[in-house]
Amino acid sequence: MQDLENLFRPRAIAIVGISSNPTTPRRDRFLTPLLDFGFEGQIYPINPKGGEISGLRILPSIKDIPGAVDYVIASIPAPFCPQLMRDCIAKGVKFVCSYASGFSETGEEEGIALEAELAQIAKSGGSRIIGPNCLGTYCPEGHISYRSEFPKESGPVGYLCQSGGNSIQLVQMVAPRGVRFSKVVSYGNACDLSECDFLQYLTHDPDTEIIALYIEGVKDGQRFINLLTEASKRKPVVLLKGGCSMAGAMAVSSHTGALAGNNAIWDALCKQLGIIRVHSLEELGDMLVTFLFMSPVRGRNMAIVGIGGGASVLATDDCESVGLAVPPLPLEIREELLKFTPKAGSSVRNPIDTQVILSEPNWFLDTVRIISSWKGIDLVIVLVGPIDVFPSYIGKQSMYGLMVKAMLEASIASAKPVAAVVQPGIHPEMYNDMFGAQQEFASAGFPVYPTMIRAAKAIDKFISYHQRKKLS
Amino acid sequence: MQDLENLFRPRAIAIVGISSNPTTPRRDRFLTPLLDFGFEGQIYPINPKGGEISGLRILPSIKDIPGAVDYVIASIPAPFCPQLMRDCIAKGVKFVCSYASGFSETGEEEGIALEAELAQIAKSGGSRIIGPNCLGTYCPEGHISYRSEFPKESGPVGYLCQSGGNSIQLVQMVAPRGVRFSKVVSYGNACDLSECDFLQYLTHDPDTEIIALYIEGVKDGQRFINLLTEASKRKPVVLLKGGCSMAGAMAVSSHTGALAGNNAIWDALCKQLGIIRVHSLEELGDMLVTFLFMSPVRGRNMAIVGIGGGASVLATDDCESVGLAVPPLPLEIREELLKFTPKAGSSVRNPIDTQVILSEPNWFLDTVRIISSWKGIDLVIVLVGPIDVFPSYIGKQSMYGLMVKAMLEASIASAKPVAAVVQPGIHPEMYNDMFGAQQEFASAGFPVYPTMIRAAKAIDKFISYHQRKKLS
Repeated sequence: MQDLENLFRPRAIAIVGISSNPTTPRRDRFLTPLLDFGFEGQIYPINPKGGEISGLRILPSIKDIPGAVDYVIASIPAPFCPQLMRDCIAKGVKFVCSYASGFSETGEEEGIALEAELAQIAKSGGSRIIGPNCLGTYCPEGHISYRSEFPKESGPVGYLCQSGGNSIQLVQMVAPRGVRFSKVVSYGNACDLSECDFLQYLTHDPDTEIIALYIEGVKDGQRFINLLTEASKRKPVVLLKGGCSMAGAMAVSSHTGALAGNNAIWDALCKQLGIIRVHSLEELGDMLVTFLFMSPVRGRNMAIVGIGGGASVLATDDCESVGLAVPPLPLEIREELLKFTPKAGSSVRNPIDTQVILSEPNWFLDTVRIISSWKGIDLVIVLVGPIDVFPSYIGKQSMYGLMVKAMLEASIASAKPVAAVVQPGIHPEMYNDMFGAQQEFASAGFPVYPTMIRAAKAIDKFISYHQRKKLS
Repeated sequence: MQDLENLFRPRAIAIVGISSNPTTPRRDRFLTPLLDFGFEGQIYPINPKGGEISGLRILPSIKDIPGAVDYVIASIPAPFCPQLMRDCIAKGVKFVCSYASGFSETGEEEGIALEAELAQIAKSGGSRIIGPNCLGTYCPEGHISYRSEFPKESGPVGYLCQSGGNSIQLVQMVAPRGVRFSKVVSYGNACDLSECDFLQYLTHDPDTEIIALYIEGVKDGQRFINLLTEASKRKPVVLLKGGCSMAGAMAVSSHTGALAGNNAIWDALCKQLGIIRVHSLEELGDMLVTFLFMSPVRGRNMAIVGIGGGASVLATDDCESVGLAVPPLPLEIREELLKFTPKAGSSVRNPIDTQVILSEPNWFLDTVRIISSWKGIDLVIVLVGPIDVFPSYIGKQSMYGLMVKAMLEASIASAKPVAAVVQPGIHPEMYNDMFGAQQEFASAGFPVYPTMIRAAKAIDKFISYHQRKKLS
């Protein structure tokens, strides 16, 4: 196994293609994140013109670096990359991340030849390449990142992403819901180091408990299948395959130069190995939230509890549409609930539509305690409606806040696992509160989803995954 | 046909169950929206205790109202409703909206009997009932609303909604995307006036061009089918059926006391009549946006244009997954684009991933002009990525603003219809800008969606609807 440790915890980094000219756009795109993450090793900015940036002297060339360098980020146009690779080999650099595009993904002879040349140089010398056409690595523990906005804290998700943009979007999308990453790799065209190398690394990485994949195509199918088999035995693997349609496969070839492969084969492979296949970044994020925060669920019987009759009707349809059950509560449980739940305007059958929260929050706590104690329920789904829909009689925000507080306390008191659906509001001035509610549930360790159908789909896949594990 | 005009444009309204005590929660829930909407007729608050509210004198009883009253909103507990109905009949009131729940939806003898009594009184006298267990009517032209936050402007959508909460959620959800309503009715248990009466009205209402339905159950199936047949001949009808699963059907009975009916029958009915069936409020909203703002599309060939390789790969998969095509642009078009599009970091094949917007916005305009002129394209989908994903080198907000401005100008210059996908951002401080971008596209008359898959599903259904119309 290739030791990729230095990719995630390099001791010194050089950034080639930085500029001392403050008007050059995005000149600091790779430097600033390292500074913001408090990268602890040496950082060497490189540009033949020299100068200074962020208090660091810009060296003219890799050769001029005084000490050792593990990792070089190459932010220079494609045609300059082969020479840089040679310099890196001469310097004893372990890894080079090539940001530039203009290689095989152009579909043109020149770019294809350039990429082949890069790969050839890597093979002949001691330096390995990530990319080209990629953003490189993010590892909070190594204080390395290509985005300042990424969370500074580490977590158990390892994420291989062939697309730089899709890596940024997922990491930021799930951050408010509590998902944190051990390592993220944006690896682009994969001319040398490939999804296989990274997958093998994450499979054995003790900091990685869940593996997320966005893959457009693989180069060595058999090796990949072998590695995926090994990975899926050890850790949950969630896969988003880009380019699963005909036109999508063509788009893949223009994006990372990869061969997308046959969709049916991917489907069969996932089924066989128990890999959770998803079809959007949102769904990928939902699965990570679920694996991170959902306690093992014994069966498919859901209790849905919230405010709103129409909302709970649709929530029930959503659950049943993916094969989750919403069984009616038995008479004795209903009678217990009716001791404090007014008959008018409520339903205690399951879904439970109850407005007690508005009169006496403790009754909501009791509601969840009672329904979660019944043996016929495996999971409680708390439904927090959109903030704009609630009555404003005690001020919209405090009304919503009151509801969220009561629902969170009830979730903590539940005798069964809980999932929270915090629906987005519509008006910008209310967005902050909805966002805060999501974070409150996430901080308390609950899986949070923005809609019931997304929750239901993720919960269904989570339960199926564990059932399969049990049988195998 | 029952003349429901006074439900939407009453000359005078009485609100029964209002309180002069400022500590009574939600005591003004039906009054404040009327004041906020500038209701032009008389408003009579009613409570036996008398007093004053918002500068209006509270009368002890319906009988004490000096003039005529078309519409009475009853915000009093269920057991008081029959006597109120008798008073209303004596007073010659045309319509009574009963907000209270505690009727047949409780499933208990008492509530069922009370509802039957209400219906019986209505049938014997001259006053008709909406509800019980409902919020009544919203009609901007009539200055009548049950929510202050609803848009004050009128539009072409008529919306019948059996659930009050689902009526509020939809109206507010689609407002930023430009959807406005002629009439909305939240009609609850439908003990007297039913979905049939309202559907018949909307079918012939000159202010209503599109009919949206959220229905949990119907009471007179044959009449409803006849009316739906007539409605669907005249106007696009979009239907969200609540309670289409087994447990959902039981939830329906606890919510509005309705019989949900067989899901397969609803499906067959929709297919036969060319009614667009949807499965969530989000999808219902997407269809309204589409019918309101999408120009007739000749075929299923999409051009996808935006920034981001991975994003455009997934967007292409989303389109093809619902049967929309993303055909490759011919060589001559690509060559024209490559005159100003750098080969590295872009793809001009379709999907078009182009960063020219960042260097020269006019080139983006040219891009859309060129691709939309090609005969092989029927619709251009402009993909505005999440605000958090864009480089921050000229300040996040202005970067996003620059992009949105260029994309909007290009959309206006397009030779073919355009749909915009404006993806939500993640961080609250950026939400405002995303929201603004959505509104800019909507104001310019474009259909806007938050994700590509939602856009693709709505566009597919829109095209199928028009193809069917053409054939029939």
